[in-house]
Amino acid sequence: MRYAPSDLPVFTLTTGPVDAYPAVLRGLAATVLYDYDPAFQATYQRVTEKLAGMVKSETMPVLLQGEPVLGLEAAAVSLIGRDDVVLNLVSGVYSKGFAPWAARSGAEIVELAVPYNEVIDPAAVARALAARPDVTVVALCHHDTPSGTINPVAEIGAVVKAHGALFLVDAVSSFGGMKVDAESAAIDLLVTGPNKCLGCPPGLTILGVSNRAWAKMKANPQAPRASILSILDWEDAWRADQPFPFTPSVAEINGLEAAIDLYLAEGAEKVWARHALTARACRAGLKAMGLAIWPADESFASPTATAVRTPDGIDEAELRAQVRARYGVVLSSGRGETLGRLTRIGHMGPTAQPLYAVVALTALGGALGALGHGVDVGAGAAAALAVIDAG
Amino acid sequence: MRYAPSDLPVFTLTTGPVDAYPAVLRGLAATVLYDYDPAFQATYQRVTEKLAGMVKSETMPVLLQGEPVLGLEAAAVSLIGRDDVVLNLVSGVYSKGFAPWAARSGAEIVELAVPYNEVIDPAAVARALAARPDVTVVALCHHDTPSGTINPVAEIGAVVKAHGALFLVDAVSSFGGMKVDAESAAIDLLVTGPNKCLGCPPGLTILGVSNRAWAKMKANPQAPRASILSILDWEDAWRADQPFPFTPSVAEINGLEAAIDLYLAEGAEKVWARHALTARACRAGLKAMGLAIWPADESFASPTATAVRTPDGIDEAELRAQVRARYGVVLSSGRGETLGRLTRIGHMGPTAQPLYAVVALTALGGALGALGHGVDVGAGAAAALAVIDAG
Amino acid sequence: MRYAPSDLPVFTLTTGPVDAYPAVLRGLAATVLYDYDPAFQATYQRVTEKLAGMVKSETMPVLLQGEPVLGLEAAAVSLIGRDDVVLNLVSGVYSKGFAPWAARSGAEIVELAVPYNEVIDPAAVARALAARPDVTVVALCHHDTPSGTINPVAEIGAVVKAHGALFLVDAVSSFGGMKVDAESAAIDLLVTGPNKCLGCPPGLTILGVSNRAWAKMKANPQAPRASILSILDWEDAWRADQPFPFTPSVAEINGLEAAIDLYLAEGAEKVWARHALTARACRAGLKAMGLAIWPADESFASPTATAVRTPDGIDEAELRAQVRARYGVVLSSGRGETLGRLTRIGHMGPTAQPLYAVVALTALGGALGALGHGVDVGAGAAAALAVIDAG
Amino acid sequence: MRYAPSDLPVFTLTTGPVDAYPAVLRGLAATVLYDYDPAFQATYQRVTEKLAGMVKSETMPVLLQGEPVLGLEAAAVSLIGRDDVVLNLVSGVYSKGFAPWAARSGAEIVELAVPYNEVIDPAAVARALAARPDVTVVALCHHDTPSGTINPVAEIGAVVKAHGALFLVDAVSSFGGMKVDAESAAIDLLVTGPNKCLGCPPGLTILGVSNRAWAKMKANPQAPRASILSILDWEDAWRADQPFPFTPSVAEINGLEAAIDLYLAEGAEKVWARHALTARACRAGLKAMGLAIWPADESFASPTATAVRTPDGIDEAELRAQVRARYGVVLSSGRGETLGRLTRIGHMGPTAQPLYAVVALTALGGALGALGHGVDVGAGAAAALAVIDAG
Repeated sequence: MRYAPSDLPVFTLTTGPVDAYPAVLRGLAATVLYDYDPAFQATYQRVTEKLAGMVKSETMPVLLQGEPVLGLEAAAVSLIGRDDVVLNLVSGVYSKGFAPWAARSGAEIVELAVPYNEVIDPAAVARALAARPDVTVVALCHHDTPSGTINPVAEIGAVVKAHGALFLVDAVSSFGGMKVDAESAAIDLLVTGPNKCLGCPPGLTILGVSNRAWAKMKANPQAPRASILSILDWEDAWRADQPFPFTPSVAEINGLEAAIDLYLAEGAEKVWARHALTARACRAGLKAMGLAIWPADESFASPTATAVRTPDGIDEAELRAQVRARYGVVLSSGRGETLGRLTRIGHMGPTAQPLYAVVALTALGGALGALGHGVDVGAGAAAALAVIDAG
Repeated sequence: MRYAPSDLPVFTLTTGPVDAYPAVLRGLAATVLYDYDPAFQATYQRVTEKLAGMVKSETMPVLLQGEPVLGLEAAAVSLIGRDDVVLNLVSGVYSKGFAPWAARSGAEIVELAVPYNEVIDPAAVARALAARPDVTVVALCHHDTPSGTINPVAEIGAVVKAHGALFLVDAVSSFGGMKVDAESAAIDLLVTGPNKCLGCPPGLTILGVSNRAWAKMKANPQAPRASILSILDWEDAWRADQPFPFTPSVAEINGLEAAIDLYLAEGAEKVWARHALTARACRAGLKAMGLAIWPADESFASPTATAVRTPDGIDEAELRAQVRARYGVVLSSGRGETLGRLTRIGHMGPTAQPLYAVVALTALGGALGALGHGVDVGAGAAAALAVIDAG
Repeated sequence: MRYAPSDLPVFTLTTGPVDAYPAVLRGLAATVLYDYDPAFQATYQRVTEKLAGMVKSETMPVLLQGEPVLGLEAAAVSLIGRDDVVLNLVSGVYSKGFAPWAARSGAEIVELAVPYNEVIDPAAVARALAARPDVTVVALCHHDTPSGTINPVAEIGAVVKAHGALFLVDAVSSFGGMKVDAESAAIDLLVTGPNKCLGCPPGLTILGVSNRAWAKMKANPQAPRASILSILDWEDAWRADQPFPFTPSVAEINGLEAAIDLYLAEGAEKVWARHALTARACRAGLKAMGLAIWPADESFASPTATAVRTPDGIDEAELRAQVRARYGVVLSSGRGETLGRLTRIGHMGPTAQPLYAVVALTALGGALGALGHGVDVGAGAAAALAVIDAG
Repeated sequence: MRYAPSDLPVFTLTTGPVDAYPAVLRGLAATVLYDYDPAFQATYQRVTEKLAGMVKSETMPVLLQGEPVLGLEAAAVSLIGRDDVVLNLVSGVYSKGFAPWAARSGAEIVELAVPYNEVIDPAAVARALAARPDVTVVALCHHDTPSGTINPVAEIGAVVKAHGALFLVDAVSSFGGMKVDAESAAIDLLVTGPNKCLGCPPGLTILGVSNRAWAKMKANPQAPRASILSILDWEDAWRADQPFPFTPSVAEINGLEAAIDLYLAEGAEKVWARHALTARACRAGLKAMGLAIWPADESFASPTATAVRTPDGIDEAELRAQVRARYGVVLSSGRGETLGRLTRIGHMGPTAQPLYAVVALTALGGALGALGHGVDVGAGAAAALAVIDAG
């Protein structure tokens, strides 16, 4: 049998948009209230307060009304002015892609880059900052999703803090699936969203902002105001008695609350553990099938997405097409420089359950076989199971 | 009995966010697909194609991933460059509020203003254009929601077309509730969204773009690219075989499709007729209760929102608080200059059903009575019913 | 404008099936679990335990897997054996209709009847029991819905208790909308369901059973076992560690839990108060419009449904057809002997909100006018509002 | 990691209640209409008409308002009178369990039984009928779910037809997942429901009735009337202009329509093919893992449920507990005589997708290993994949 492109897939094991939790879908379907209705204003404040315990920023989290690509652009143009010097830590397509936003104000961008299957060395950051003591902002992508690699955010944060620069971190595809918060990593501007490991659809940004970051943004004459790109406009919007700069995305907020409630009910440690175990099982299975992960070292492979190097001679787009057509499974491609060179299996939110690793391995292995690159799917499943059982 | 602020309201008769159609809520709860899944790409194209018949722009409608305040800002900064001269037609708070976005590029803004309870006279537009033949863009807010007034968009469009300027129209709170489309009003850049008369939650913008508007935006070096504010990035995104600039709001798209399907199944003329009849019934009831509408003349009172002038001596915020506390009804306030001076009753989407006018009249009348401004609610209900019966 | 029969109605103000709470609809959409999954078994027990505080029966409430017509038949055939003498208290179509089920076992049925717009006098029950000391079961319909009348259940219960008979009560359309429970009315077998005042769809029965009723059913050789009609089979099914006799209606149970949670969060007294106030407002409006209620005395008019006597010369079916076609409002007809003679307005669950009385009055009045029986709708609305404001 | 009993499972791969299609869940959440609202009456008729093409009975399908255990009891007591002689074909727990209902009227029951891992031989039916020419009704369970075996319904139907008896078939857990309909198997009274292969929650029965069966029921004085067990009461209820005997389960009907629409959109042949392929893959995997299926011969193993014989020394309840605790997978036990002797993996509705076989195999194999009965899970996954790829 074959799944037609118009058939709904059976398993969406992607790196975002991810399959949403059923409870989130029901949350999205909640009655839409007027944004200035006190019941909604209370909801908005309550959601923010719940997030505060997860983001652990010095000030209350800020919600922006667009998926995190808005948050990243807004963060860049709000925090960075023309007098800034930004150290952009580049370990992949997304961190590289941050530069144009960072540079929009006219700031100077200094780049510290590593190959896209490596991660940033905190010592290298220290050296870079020593070489350029005028750096005022350091930007990091915690999980460079197109590479499936996790940068050592806490260690880099300590270096940045010692230097005195502001630390801007894209934690979009790691937050909620592993430990990362503003406090433990000394992050001044943490950008994330509910549409990855929290299992929501795309549509919102979550920001964690330090006191210094607020001060910097307020002092920045170039920081957007009265704009979709403004962070400043939303500083007090979380308070039930304060106005919204413009209409928030009511349904997405309702969905987010459902996701947060699931997360808190399960417990962060348990949520992270199942993300990590799913990824470990996936990697073990790949190895047993003779497939290589993209990250140069498994120690920094992501717990929320596994990037599989495309075997020689395989057309990666065709590979994913086969995975979907033969098994109803949707996987993610690479992006930019990694496009065609790897396939990504998401372990985010509802699909961060170990047995989904077996689903992904089977589908991937089966499709490779169909394309003439036979692998031992049985060995993959068994290896994954062994990890799950030990987990 | 009293409704506490934390109680869910019984009737949300606002001007947006509006109560959503139940079918839209179920649409929002549909399975979240990966944006590059062919089934979702087909959905996105299909939604756009259905919208094409509603927006009637020369080119395929564009969806932006944020509620229409994004669309308005994006339209302003994409279409208007520093060499432009913009005639901004100001008949209320929202049209006035468009100016800063229009001016961001450095363009000159010429203003033609009327009192906020009046509408723009096409002849005055003609005169203004004659006086300033260098005007390149004319901006109009079709329904200046904080005033509940409808500008004669088709007549103004004809004037603008004759002049040769581009016509940029905010039709956010009229589209879907009355006849307004790019073709019949010669609109070059129509900005609207599903979160008013289509009965969706806020979260998306719908744009209708003429060929000239595309050409102008493409030629504008200041038009945003690689930005949440970019329209250009999304030109081809509607095609199932083209990439998205960034992740679209999957759930909102699903909800929008449900709304469109309802609209098309009911038929545009029928939808508009029930909006108009609800508003007429509401106005008749207000008159019978001795209350004045805000618009100076009923002929340009909106069919999608009725603005009621606050009686002397009444605190408008307290009035709405009473309406909610006593009857569980949520109404909208004015905004900016109209804040405190009027209360708005929305007739949008699912609440554009004539009997909701009676609900609103009863609640408003009851609350006025409670505040010492007794009105004849019975006369109001009877007058509304008479209109409904004749409708 | 007219609503076509195929159009969805705008307001469903019926006596059941009733409009469901949005939260109940989302509850129905919850993930369907295997009935023997421990998570579902825990849900089933939890739902029963929550109901216990509402039903107040001596033993744990029992859920049957069908709407209360199943519960009534099951109660009759489980409790009543061929040696029983049943006093059936008849005040309307539903109480009359109970007799054939009561008689199925061969038991003798003694009837105490009043006109269908009256209620049962407890003193008459006492006299009837004195005349027939061999009566073993007394059956009452608390709210004979087709009449909109409320029998004095607590007073009758005291009489029955003094006599020593078992008291079987149909509280289907009163439970959850007014005070009625097994304890306060000395009910041995209380039959109700979630599909009226709890705002659920039809599909389940709720039973409250006394110890004596269990003993009687167990001793009754005619009581169904291994049957959809068995109550006995379900005695222990509420316990998470006990099997179900057959598969329960998983989705309906999920919906019921959502309804119970709403009820408990709002508080029983508040829920009852808004049912009562809505009905009072409705009756005041009818009176002001010159329309008569069906009950002979307002003191026993139901707080959950208002029965309006059909004016002379009006075709009641045509009246409801007009109400729907002109205003999108759905009302209920009478049943059996009351069919054609009255129209019922439900005040149950989500529509037991006072302003819905105005909606119903306006629609009813408007339709009467259209049929040539003009009434003063304004007076009706004003009178209803006065009651609401005083409520 | 371990899943607690209170945690929601990740995969519900049971034989009913089954995981419901997301579209069915949204259908359940549709607005609840009054049962006599013309829009609902039209829905009810439309649903019945759609079912007609699936059930292929001589007359319009009948819906009963309870899960199929109601339908089976109702069928038995409606069709069978005290003068009947019933040949009950027993190949498992469910067919055996039908006898008490069949006997309730006082009819004589003749049993033709085979071991519970075998199926009925049509030739044996012919012999039994030859031996008892007075048999008037033959009862068969098409898929005796607790055994996972499929009886040759069409062949037996031909024998029964030749004899002239009425053919009553329980097709609850096969209908919708494989070819079975009244026409092709000469069934006079087909009993099924939406809660298995159609992917709905339990709550409704679907009946297909021949003209002879209607005549027989009408002539049967013992056939229930004015009862939840009555089929006769519902004969015309499908017509939009006819009354319902009592309130139908509105939400379940809405859910059923969603399921039917999915089924028709996908196409029956495609639906059946994926059920069959999933089961084939599952069986191949079991074999490769050294596990035996319960059916004595794979040729009559069910395409909708695979029964796995419990290995010696394994506690089956503990096995399923491990499957759930370790992997979040829910499987079904046996029932009655098969309880403890087998575990069942459902392939019904949304889980009848081949890759779910791998999920089940992995979980089952892992749990067996944990209990000391190591199996080669890798071989199982590989064998399943080979079948899928060839399918």
